[in-house]
Amino acid sequence: MSFHDDVLARRAKGLSLEAASSSHELISFGSGHALESLLPDLRDAANLALSEYRAESLQYGPRRGLPDLREWLTQYLAEDGTDVGTDELIIVNGAKHGLELICRLLLDEGDAVIVTAPTYFTAIPILRSFNAQVLEVGQDSEGMDVEDLTALLSRVEREGGRRPKFIYDVPDFHNPTGRTMSRQRRESLVAIAARAGISIVEDSPYRSVRFEGAPVPSLKSLAGRNGNVFGLGTFSKLLAPGLRIGWVSASTDLITRMTQLKSDGGTCPMTQRMIVEFCRAGGLAAHALKVRHAYREQRDALLAALGEHLPEITTSVPDGGYYLWASLPPHLDAADLARAAAARGVEILPGSLFYAGAANAASDNQRPPRNHLRLAYSSEPVDRIREGIVRLADAYHEIIGR
Amino acid sequence: MSFHDDVLARRAKGLSLEAASSSHELISFGSGHALESLLPDLRDAANLALSEYRAESLQYGPRRGLPDLREWLTQYLAEDGTDVGTDELIIVNGAKHGLELICRLLLDEGDAVIVTAPTYFTAIPILRSFNAQVLEVGQDSEGMDVEDLTALLSRVEREGGRRPKFIYDVPDFHNPTGRTMSRQRRESLVAIAARAGISIVEDSPYRSVRFEGAPVPSLKSLAGRNGNVFGLGTFSKLLAPGLRIGWVSASTDLITRMTQLKSDGGTCPMTQRMIVEFCRAGGLAAHALKVRHAYREQRDALLAALGEHLPEITTSVPDGGYYLWASLPPHLDAADLARAAAARGVEILPGSLFYAGAANAASDNQRPPRNHLRLAYSSEPVDRIREGIVRLADAYHEIIGR
Repeated sequence: MSFHDDVLARRAKGLSLEAASSSHELISFGSGHALESLLPDLRDAANLALSEYRAESLQYGPRRGLPDLREWLTQYLAEDGTDVGTDELIIVNGAKHGLELICRLLLDEGDAVIVTAPTYFTAIPILRSFNAQVLEVGQDSEGMDVEDLTALLSRVEREGGRRPKFIYDVPDFHNPTGRTMSRQRRESLVAIAARAGISIVEDSPYRSVRFEGAPVPSLKSLAGRNGNVFGLGTFSKLLAPGLRIGWVSASTDLITRMTQLKSDGGTCPMTQRMIVEFCRAGGLAAHALKVRHAYREQRDALLAALGEHLPEITTSVPDGGYYLWASLPPHLDAADLARAAAARGVEILPGSLFYAGAANAASDNQRPPRNHLRLAYSSEPVDRIREGIVRLADAYHEIIGR
Repeated sequence: MSFHDDVLARRAKGLSLEAASSSHELISFGSGHALESLLPDLRDAANLALSEYRAESLQYGPRRGLPDLREWLTQYLAEDGTDVGTDELIIVNGAKHGLELICRLLLDEGDAVIVTAPTYFTAIPILRSFNAQVLEVGQDSEGMDVEDLTALLSRVEREGGRRPKFIYDVPDFHNPTGRTMSRQRRESLVAIAARAGISIVEDSPYRSVRFEGAPVPSLKSLAGRNGNVFGLGTFSKLLAPGLRIGWVSASTDLITRMTQLKSDGGTCPMTQRMIVEFCRAGGLAAHALKVRHAYREQRDALLAALGEHLPEITTSVPDGGYYLWASLPPHLDAADLARAAAARGVEILPGSLFYAGAANAASDNQRPPRNHLRLAYSSEPVDRIREGIVRLADAYHEIIGR
């Protein structure tokens, strides 16, 4: 079993790499968990949900989600420059569930979907589980390469293929590359998609975790309320991953159709009530400040440690989010580094996991690069980040000495 | 818009019939909500989940569900005579989500699924959303008609059709008929399905809500651990609908494949922890006694009120569960009664909603009977049940007087 397969199999089983490492306590740069000490205190919100709102919290909730939460979200999104009405929102069990519902709504057998190379690695199996053909376009420091996208769409049309159903991207602090798409690139993307009659799925879990610089308008706001953009949001990165509450914004008609498909008995009203009470009481704003401060420090600690102990690795510097995209010298394979790191109790993810084409490339030319890796700085405090990079440097020197 | 369509449209929008009734406070025999005064006090469990278990509760949880909850479930199911291991269980966002995952696992475009006529009405749109062909078999006082099932399977084989993928049923306190399948019938069903190589989906949300008589072994226990039965369970009827926590039991291999499809970031670990702490502390056993006592009283109040005010309506007498299946004289249409009842602030569901064939019957012969209705006695206290039936009798006398 390759390291790649091993990681995927372990993740499917819900295991971490911890079991693989006996010599050290695991330091994880692997996944976008929250820093444990930052997890909010939700006991007051839970008590309120389970006393004053007990009947609402413990009965079936409305399929679209609690009206109070949707109402709060319209204000939250409006403050970020994105206008949506309460009827243009549905509450879902996390953003991944939102993507699943969009797939159920839009995809027929064999339809194509466009993603960046690399892209969010959990999106790939979701798309594949609907038998979607996953087409890749490149990206650079400004985000998705719109010329590459135009060329792809022309090629599909020329070859008489079916028009792809949607373009999936993470424009803010991209997972895994950490890049934020420029305004100009966003405007081009929205125009190209509108012209081609293709929807855009804007997955933006990290948008509020900005350390510096001004926010770029969301694709949704650029396309307008009746535009072709599905917005995906989540409280996982705003508050806590375990809550499993996210949302989808789209036109009223599309939300109505998604509501009909969402036959799950409604998303947990207790958790929705906890969130809306916490947010309304000002808890989110205070928490967001703490998160931004902590994760900026963690990013900086990671960059400093890499500069000191692993100058051979080049990295981008993200303005926010959870991840650093790093590159080894081109002849090295990040899977070898990941394996050597795991033996030292450090989890990193080889970049090849994030390419949809990795599993089925027909030739070496099409194979994704092997020398990238993703480093999540969200879940470990700064002293453990430093210790983790010291161990990673040790692993690096082992693999280059082979 | 027909009453049928109106109910479905309102339910899809998450509305009750309340808005339709201005003259009275709504008395609902429509849905399987819990009696509000019975909803458990989960504040201690929530406090524990959000303090001692805070990191577990608020981070991503394992995809299969919390090991502690699966462990508790193996004991709970074993006490009920069904042996499953922790690896033969996956925690899901309610039983409907379990059914969705089974559909994603088993169904290809155009596959057929077998249900009883009538059947649980939310299962029908879930199956349809996977483009399944929904085939109906009859049932009688002992449950699913296995001779009808055998005849259907022979006809499909004779006509060269694809073998149906699974048989879906609610063998305990069936929704909507309230009937419990006899042991002999269960043994036949399990044998027929095994011989034909067809899976069974045993949806059993009401099994613990038994008022009298001895439990009949589950289909899962009769088929054995490596048999072809998927067991669907939920805490919605054990504790509270709003929790949105259920489970699927199946062979380790099938559970592993469902885990790979369950790419939703894991079911909310906070709610799982609340449940396991509540159950371990003995809360479930005490709660179950209260539920059985209250719902038996409510069933009896409903039967007594019908006997007194509406002797023209005949009913079955369920030994447990939430629902009474009632029949008007054959020339009457329950949709007319439902409309007249709604005008008096009473919600009932016409039985035609529960037939998969209702929407696409080719001829009058195939159309489902129009004179049945489902009355849920779970959500209203006995005095309101009596008042509701007085109003329903008034509605009845209006429609027969037309």
